[in-house]
Amino acid sequence: MKILDGLGITAVKKVSAAGINCGIKPSGKKDMALIYSEVPFKVAAAFTDNSIVAAPVTYSKKLLRDHDEFQALLINSGNANACTGDKGYNDAVEMSEFTSKKLGLDSSTLIASTGLIGETLPMEKVRQGIESVADNLRPNGGSDAAEAIMTTDAFIKEIAVELKISDTVVRIGAMAKGAGMIAPRLVSHATMIAAVATDADISSGALSKALSEGIKTSFNRSSVDGDTSTNDSVFLLANSSAKNPKIESGEDLQLFLNAVTFIMTELTKMIIKDGEGATKLISYNIKGAKNDDEAALIGMSLVNSLLVKTMFFGADPNWGRIIAAAGASAPGIELKNTSVYFKDQLVAKDGLGIEFDQEKVGAILSSPEIELTLEVGQGKGVATCYGCDLNHEYVRINAEYTT
Amino acid sequence: MKILDGLGITAVKKVSAAGINCGIKPSGKKDMALIYSEVPFKVAAAFTDNSIVAAPVTYSKKLLRDHDEFQALLINSGNANACTGDKGYNDAVEMSEFTSKKLGLDSSTLIASTGLIGETLPMEKVRQGIESVADNLRPNGGSDAAEAIMTTDAFIKEIAVELKISDTVVRIGAMAKGAGMIAPRLVSHATMIAAVATDADISSGALSKALSEGIKTSFNRSSVDGDTSTNDSVFLLANSSAKNPKIESGEDLQLFLNAVTFIMTELTKMIIKDGEGATKLISYNIKGAKNDDEAALIGMSLVNSLLVKTMFFGADPNWGRIIAAAGASAPGIELKNTSVYFKDQLVAKDGLGIEFDQEKVGAILSSPEIELTLEVGQGKGVATCYGCDLNHEYVRINAEYTT
Repeated sequence: MKILDGLGITAVKKVSAAGINCGIKPSGKKDMALIYSEVPFKVAAAFTDNSIVAAPVTYSKKLLRDHDEFQALLINSGNANACTGDKGYNDAVEMSEFTSKKLGLDSSTLIASTGLIGETLPMEKVRQGIESVADNLRPNGGSDAAEAIMTTDAFIKEIAVELKISDTVVRIGAMAKGAGMIAPRLVSHATMIAAVATDADISSGALSKALSEGIKTSFNRSSVDGDTSTNDSVFLLANSSAKNPKIESGEDLQLFLNAVTFIMTELTKMIIKDGEGATKLISYNIKGAKNDDEAALIGMSLVNSLLVKTMFFGADPNWGRIIAAAGASAPGIELKNTSVYFKDQLVAKDGLGIEFDQEKVGAILSSPEIELTLEVGQGKGVATCYGCDLNHEYVRINAEYTT
Repeated sequence: MKILDGLGITAVKKVSAAGINCGIKPSGKKDMALIYSEVPFKVAAAFTDNSIVAAPVTYSKKLLRDHDEFQALLINSGNANACTGDKGYNDAVEMSEFTSKKLGLDSSTLIASTGLIGETLPMEKVRQGIESVADNLRPNGGSDAAEAIMTTDAFIKEIAVELKISDTVVRIGAMAKGAGMIAPRLVSHATMIAAVATDADISSGALSKALSEGIKTSFNRSSVDGDTSTNDSVFLLANSSAKNPKIESGEDLQLFLNAVTFIMTELTKMIIKDGEGATKLISYNIKGAKNDDEAALIGMSLVNSLLVKTMFFGADPNWGRIIAAAGASAPGIELKNTSVYFKDQLVAKDGLGIEFDQEKVGAILSSPEIELTLEVGQGKGVATCYGCDLNHEYVRINAEYTT
């Protein structure tokens, strides 16, 4: 597998994209993205498990139940079309139908939205936007699309890789957005939105498996703020144009699955690194839990602990907060079996603080990417979860992000 | 029932208290409190359900299993004696035994600790402190004791009431501390520590019932930061010196239970109001849930939502965050059945935003005590939960509170 530097979703054969401003965002920043494939996509998708879901989620789910093939995915930012009632649902349907019509497609267009909750879309602007974004589709428009789905994101998130299936080169390109209301629990499980496209030929079953295995150890093991969105959507799109021997099972599937998991994990890290206000990406390695699911549960309790998050902002090796948060999340953890490392520096062993190199630990805690390892000595379960620090900038953004 | 202004735990007959500095806190602020009754207390107690518990919790639990009567409760602040291994446990035992010996008691002394996790107690100072605090016991020492259990608390928390059981006056006096690592899940369920004393004569069964019913709708429906402590302890102490007809069941028990619930709810509000950095106390009234437990679950998800907490700091009526947080916590909530009020102002009805009086809502959201009502239209379940805003001061305190 090779990373294709500087490329994103349009690294994939026969996939073009565009991103424009249509006026949903008064700032004039890009707010509408379109992904288009010349040939039909098979699609596997996962959405938020919040019981309040936005209209575009409800409608895309319906489309996926009713149809097997798609050629287009339209995403707007600046307005989530959530908590907007029947009007919102009708707007979602119109977004989709207007796009298919503009593109001259027989198939329906998948949709996603992100932004403010509780306001209806300015549909006149949306219709004009769809005209414009469709006219702007380009084979190298991936970065524009990735930019157009940003809300409070500070940087665009895209990645592409290529791998060989038998002797055929297959590409996977992807884009995603964060940066708040990020605690994805995608069902199959943020408003994170991600689109991962591939030109691989792959069976529907294998595509679904790649999606569910991919999200399990990436998006679903990450959180910026513990708030699960009404709009989280991940689409895995495969248009078969690489003409590889069809991926169905065995080693080929494993290769593809590893690549998808790698891409989703990298997108997850980008989202967390760009979490609202975040100055640090922390990878929490939990080892020795009863099983992997419990390891993930412990990891997520550290990711979401305000005391742990502010500790990392303060660059303070206050490991007691880590053990306390772990104990609050999982029954049966025994203090005498717990150990805490910052990167390679052991700071607490068998539940007791030990002498450590203050300078080395201080340097680790001041770096932008930090690895924490917590051993709980109960079994063989392991998980890595991804979180960020909590700081003044987070408070500023969210006290000022307003209706 | 009458509130006794300005009184706390020593409003109770035959109860004296003291609070002193013994040097655990380098600042010289009070760090050791002693509550003493001339006649034995029956005790009902509840402790954290964190699987990592501090040594004083482990030891007080053991004492409560082995003994029926106590006369003294010693509490230190500045050091939690948590994650301190065998040494910590032996120190806890010594704290207890040294106090009983100094007071000339046959009975054991209950203990609690709060403060930094992961450092052992300075036992020489602790022993000198026990000598000094015992010598300072006074019938009006309640406020000194309440001051001595403070950590990041900004004000002391005490309250006292009197009520009549048949024709006999009975008093209940109490003290508590917050202000961080507050998400009590007391099992019977912060480091919150509370001591509630009464001179009522009451059966052990009735005392236990008063404790468990009291904590259920007060401490356990509140959170500052979502972090459940290793040290949370609530003690309900009854020394029978009011000579009332023994409370066992019926109307007398109901009167007593109401008074204990009132006291615990007032202490809870004081703790949340004094939450780290808090500028606002928000009471979340959840109505129409499937049942009371689910109403409490929804309420606690609002209490712990960073987006809702920062919304209150920003005084922004962004009700979409409220509905999103509710939907993330409880399955089956339907948008069209949800309504949101700030105090008496309806801002969202049947899942849709409505026109509202911006000035009135702005004034409500800028006040120090805010009531929010969320209706979810599923059934008859109700609960009120207590939370605070999240702001820059919270971040400052916890990024700087250091090892």
